[in-house]
Amino acid sequence: MKIIIVGASGTIGKKVTEFLRGENEIITAGSKSGDIQVDITSSESIEAFYKQIGGFDALVSVTGSAHFGPLTTMTAKDFDIGLQNKLLGQVNLVLIGQHYINAKGSFTLTSGILSDDPIVLGSNLSTVNGGINAFAKAAAIELENGVRINAISADVVEDAPGYFPYFPGHIPVTMNRVVNAYYKSVFGALTGQVIQVW
Amino acid sequence: MKIIIVGASGTIGKKVTEFLRGENEIITAGSKSGDIQVDITSSESIEAFYKQIGGFDALVSVTGSAHFGPLTTMTAKDFDIGLQNKLLGQVNLVLIGQHYINAKGSFTLTSGILSDDPIVLGSNLSTVNGGINAFAKAAAIELENGVRINAISADVVEDAPGYFPYFPGHIPVTMNRVVNAYYKSVFGALTGQVIQVW
Repeated sequence: MKIIIVGASGTIGKKVTEFLRGENEIITAGSKSGDIQVDITSSESIEAFYKQIGGFDALVSVTGSAHFGPLTTMTAKDFDIGLQNKLLGQVNLVLIGQHYINAKGSFTLTSGILSDDPIVLGSNLSTVNGGINAFAKAAAIELENGVRINAISADVVEDAPGYFPYFPGHIPVTMNRVVNAYYKSVFGALTGQVIQVW
Repeated sequence: MKIIIVGASGTIGKKVTEFLRGENEIITAGSKSGDIQVDITSSESIEAFYKQIGGFDALVSVTGSAHFGPLTTMTAKDFDIGLQNKLLGQVNLVLIGQHYINAKGSFTLTSGILSDDPIVLGSNLSTVNGGINAFAKAAAIELENGVRINAISADVVEDAPGYFPYFPGHIPVTMNRVVNAYYKSVFGALTGQVIQVW
């Protein structure tokens, strides 16, 4: 299977890449690292990216930034960071990628627990994650040729201790559970699902 | 109670306005109609809007457009319509409005059933609605001075028969249920909730 992993150098991306590598052909991608670079905020960059790769069987997106900060001082400009990057960036990997993916291929996007279980400073991420989850459910009923789509929604992960103080009372999830969620989305048959890891 | 209704001339907005009027001071607003005009895609317009109104007790938003069309031909530009208008527009009514609202006031935003129960052509609206729901949950834990926020998520409404063909198998909800959901959000004590009407 030919699998593209966007955000392959990140905390989750690294482990997902190791876990999926096996006998598969992996193409790693990132804004500055990986086999191929792609700017997910640019339709032109995404189009060129897929043209270079040609057909593929799975796109795993473990990427996207958002604004993290207090609601009381947040502006529309701050808020739009997450909308344009983690939300629209990942959506656009699907909007353009649907024209390049092989029949019965799959898209796996990344949301996160904050859509359902918010933390202080996290309102932009909560919104973005809620949008990604709903998009996966909705896109699943329109994708053609048996192409599937799911979103992975994890709690704070054990490999990211720097975030623990922002998640009081959250029990960090093991990387083993997280990578298996991505594996399930790619190698299983689910579509239109939010695969929760918490 | 001084209540602002943005989108007061719309299908739902008209009925909500009638229902909330009672003994309350109602200020109707819209992009082109109402007591005061406001462009929810412009921070400058929203800021001027609140400055003109001064303190208020409740902001009810029943507004916002999105792109409605097939996923297979959707572009990032199409998709951004809903992100900038129904999603960020309503969020920005809160981001700016939090600095003008009276203590113990409330914000009531509008999402919709498509976040959970998608229809063909609706992926942009699904995403936007999922974002609004998550924002309401997240913003509730950061709003100060006892200010509350909820989202109303209704199925297709009985007063909008033009939409029925796009919602096969959905049973249109009565306007009475819909307006009572808004009433519950404004006059009840809920916060951080998605009030479902379906």
